[in-house]
Amino acid sequence: MSTILNNINAPRDLRLLNPEDLPQLAKELREFIINVVATKEGHLGASLGVIELTIALHYVFNTPHDELIWDVGHQAYGHKILTGRKSVFHTNRQIGGISGFPKRSESIYDAFGVGHASTSVSAALGMAIASQLNGDTDKHHIAVIGDASIAGGMAFEGLNHAGVTDANLLVILNDNAIGIDPSVGALKQYLTNVKKGTQKRENIFEALNFNYTGPIDGHDLNTIIQELERLKSVKGPKFLHIITTKGKGLKQAEEDQVRYHAPGKFDAVTGELISKPNVKQPPKYQDVFGHTIVELATQNKNIVGITPAMPTGSSLKYMMAKMPDRAFDVGIAEQHAVTLASGMATQGIIPFCNIYSTFLQRAYDQIIHDVALQNLPVIFCLDRAGLVGTDGATHHGVYDLSYLRCIPNLIIFAPRNEIELRNIMYTAQLGLQNPIAIRYPRGRGVTTDWQQPFSKIDIGTGVQLKEGNEVAVLSIGNMSKNMSEAIKNSNAPNAIAHYDMRFIRPLDENLLHGILKTYNLIITIEDNTIKGGFGSAVLEFAAKHNYKTPINLLGIPDTFIEHGGTLALQQSIGLDTESLTRYINTLI
Amino acid sequence: MSTILNNINAPRDLRLLNPEDLPQLAKELREFIINVVATKEGHLGASLGVIELTIALHYVFNTPHDELIWDVGHQAYGHKILTGRKSVFHTNRQIGGISGFPKRSESIYDAFGVGHASTSVSAALGMAIASQLNGDTDKHHIAVIGDASIAGGMAFEGLNHAGVTDANLLVILNDNAIGIDPSVGALKQYLTNVKKGTQKRENIFEALNFNYTGPIDGHDLNTIIQELERLKSVKGPKFLHIITTKGKGLKQAEEDQVRYHAPGKFDAVTGELISKPNVKQPPKYQDVFGHTIVELATQNKNIVGITPAMPTGSSLKYMMAKMPDRAFDVGIAEQHAVTLASGMATQGIIPFCNIYSTFLQRAYDQIIHDVALQNLPVIFCLDRAGLVGTDGATHHGVYDLSYLRCIPNLIIFAPRNEIELRNIMYTAQLGLQNPIAIRYPRGRGVTTDWQQPFSKIDIGTGVQLKEGNEVAVLSIGNMSKNMSEAIKNSNAPNAIAHYDMRFIRPLDENLLHGILKTYNLIITIEDNTIKGGFGSAVLEFAAKHNYKTPINLLGIPDTFIEHGGTLALQQSIGLDTESLTRYINTLI
Repeated sequence: MSTILNNINAPRDLRLLNPEDLPQLAKELREFIINVVATKEGHLGASLGVIELTIALHYVFNTPHDELIWDVGHQAYGHKILTGRKSVFHTNRQIGGISGFPKRSESIYDAFGVGHASTSVSAALGMAIASQLNGDTDKHHIAVIGDASIAGGMAFEGLNHAGVTDANLLVILNDNAIGIDPSVGALKQYLTNVKKGTQKRENIFEALNFNYTGPIDGHDLNTIIQELERLKSVKGPKFLHIITTKGKGLKQAEEDQVRYHAPGKFDAVTGELISKPNVKQPPKYQDVFGHTIVELATQNKNIVGITPAMPTGSSLKYMMAKMPDRAFDVGIAEQHAVTLASGMATQGIIPFCNIYSTFLQRAYDQIIHDVALQNLPVIFCLDRAGLVGTDGATHHGVYDLSYLRCIPNLIIFAPRNEIELRNIMYTAQLGLQNPIAIRYPRGRGVTTDWQQPFSKIDIGTGVQLKEGNEVAVLSIGNMSKNMSEAIKNSNAPNAIAHYDMRFIRPLDENLLHGILKTYNLIITIEDNTIKGGFGSAVLEFAAKHNYKTPINLLGIPDTFIEHGGTLALQQSIGLDTESLTRYINTLI
Repeated sequence: MSTILNNINAPRDLRLLNPEDLPQLAKELREFIINVVATKEGHLGASLGVIELTIALHYVFNTPHDELIWDVGHQAYGHKILTGRKSVFHTNRQIGGISGFPKRSESIYDAFGVGHASTSVSAALGMAIASQLNGDTDKHHIAVIGDASIAGGMAFEGLNHAGVTDANLLVILNDNAIGIDPSVGALKQYLTNVKKGTQKRENIFEALNFNYTGPIDGHDLNTIIQELERLKSVKGPKFLHIITTKGKGLKQAEEDQVRYHAPGKFDAVTGELISKPNVKQPPKYQDVFGHTIVELATQNKNIVGITPAMPTGSSLKYMMAKMPDRAFDVGIAEQHAVTLASGMATQGIIPFCNIYSTFLQRAYDQIIHDVALQNLPVIFCLDRAGLVGTDGATHHGVYDLSYLRCIPNLIIFAPRNEIELRNIMYTAQLGLQNPIAIRYPRGRGVTTDWQQPFSKIDIGTGVQLKEGNEVAVLSIGNMSKNMSEAIKNSNAPNAIAHYDMRFIRPLDENLLHGILKTYNLIITIEDNTIKGGFGSAVLEFAAKHNYKTPINLLGIPDTFIEHGGTLALQQSIGLDTESLTRYINTLI
């Protein structure tokens, strides 16, 4: 069926085509992506929006010699399929399969690994300057960046530097007015004005010394190819502004761009989503956060919510709908989000700043310098902490306990279930004198009956979940579940006591003294790297107080964990229930 | 003598003056700052440049009700003196004295603590939105930001958000074309064009939806006051562009703005620097870095140097002078600096990316996501690691070992002297397969005869500095010196063995096995927080291998350390030689 696409195993095959064949290829490429993603799931809308651009880039430029960086990488499925990964595309995001993002170790065509936003200009500029130094003067370096990502501060830093170089750099702005959620901010308004023609010709990118062209229609292959051909001979930093439609070619994906960003399974022909059987399940932690903040904010007028570009992912969307004046999507701007929250906290406002664990890495300095040093009671909700599954190595939130634990004044809590999440959110807004980080995983919790009345949690207190007479297991957050089941399934459940320490900072020192005096062996378990996390905190405490009890640390090993289903990943590192059962059986 | 300034103990006194008295006040305020800084040292040029602005702001606005944030804060001496700290200004930056930066705990007039660049827009916007929510509609929120700081990505994020709000926010761009070193980047060129009138009226800040006025003369009190009065009644986000001269009023400071940023002692009348007695001293680590990279880059054509806005502070200036095509000042843009380096590394270039430890916090995500995950051999030189002295809490580099140690693939090394720094720099450029972080302190080393031939260091190897039969001290980097002397001065030097472990990642496991089997007690010492740093790495290793040897951790306590001389700070936390001697004597 896919007669043209069938014969393309690398961009060199593509370059042999006549220009008039390319629209047919675009059609086939769209169908190929839709057919695979409909059953295998993945990111859909972004790739459909850049099919023409993808074809044009590989048609005009000499990839992989010319280097192409896709910012974020959600949009790179077409690129992957055209660059030798058509036959393995059905393994996308699965364990052992190809990554959902461009990745250097996967293909020579993936010039730079991506996942987090706004990195492409800096990386491409670094390559372009390197090529100059290497005397590789005919080499092109292309960053394709969306209008949501280009608003991230890091992209501005890259543009600001590029504008004073003569590097052979082409920045292509893929302007579809949406990231995962609709784009926000003054730059987005500005770009809209440029599109409408109400903005004067002299623009921000020209002010930054780029040779600007656009906006052009990003679905018109002839126009794009013509423009790219022209830009090949333009020296220095160049900026091409193209207008695309996210989800292009699938009616529902164009009409509901948020839902079809990563729609799950759908009917490849009709585009209809395939709804899952309506079984009563525990809620997503995200929805517990989203509904609970609305509930709390209804009572407490000082509460606000902040998300950097993740209203849907974090479920802050519920608050944004109900209380638009008190819920803020600040765009891809984690640094700004944190210091904005800090500024609000100086005025008695109680900000819940919801950031994915992996993205909080972007605002690390702001947590230390603007929040903790001034001891301002910002409430961080760290979504998607631990293993995130199919998004993989760029997105796992497995460093936060280590990078946050060394920060004075900060409280760190990990709920083991939805009720604990609700109660710590309730506790945090009661007038806490310190900043707090609440970290919880992606996906569903463990309790269907989760909307219980609020109850205050004493800061720095753990709880005993189960008695036992030989070994004490100390767990944190999400790992409590697997560990509880593993103990139950083990050969000697009575031997194992189980504690949920809850607070990584401050530790429950009374409880720890008791535990270290009582048991023969301590096991700590966390879904954070074993370097410097919760287990290390227990080791530090034990060393300080001269306890000799052996302490074994379980957690994420000191290596980057790839993509795959969360269970499969847990199995690969021994943190699933069965592996933990076997582990416990070796102890007793 | 200072007849007007004498009578000003708070801005309310200032506001009683007639406008025609203000130029005299400006003169007196300049003299006051020059007289104190001439003998007590501190940052000079920045504050001299904003004397008129400072007076005008407190004259026009109702501080502290109206909130004023000084970005970075080098320029806030005049502000401090006018807001009740005249009589304690001579204690500036000393232990127990006032901070060199605005600080909330120090004064109600310091609306937000600063030190790191580019935070002011976000913080002021947070306050302004909070004031709206609180119904405080007459309250003004003012961010004063320099042209170097506004180029930081975080500032762009703040502006981008502010432009779509109706917050009562005034951003004042203090444009003097210099940060600590001259400003760089396309935005700087753009601002220069605006000043020259060669830029069209429609500008970047208007494109971002700010009500823009300027540029105006920042030393003309009447003009500034008139403009600020006008802006008081303008609604929404406003942007005032003022032109100032750094060092204004002291001839030498105007002429050599880099040297007079923080000139040390000088003659208050003539402005001449007071040169220190010409004693042969060990070099600054900064100069060892600066000269060594030139030496290495002369041999190895693949080497480049990168600094985010610290050519003088880091001493990359030597390479920038000798090899301008291969040494890059990218401006205040740590995120970009790291990913730029990563992009270069993909092309076989060997980037030495020199960033102060405290500022690398700004690029934490980029180290993980763009460098370590792709295992690209970027060489990070972390300057000013450990206690930095009088800059204080915002600038101490005491978290790096904790936040870096959890990152897979990364090598971490701390040299105990200049020769070790040179040798690890030499080793790193020989074709290392991993990224490496080399962390060294601010200031002078220990060896006058430091320019020795290079010698390769085996990755992951520590060294024994001294034998001993009871206790093993394991030190890292700069702490080796104090510890060596403390052992020598102790009651039983023969009992104490001393090891410089050198690598925090990977640990020298062979050496550690030997140590843990041999001694009765292990002491670890580091100039990093004791939470999650080097000592914790040793604890993790010992726990993993079931060693029972007691291990005591010495390091920076889990609290923010204030400003003061480095020795005084070390004394305050027991890390100076005398305290360590006393500590050792308690052990034996």
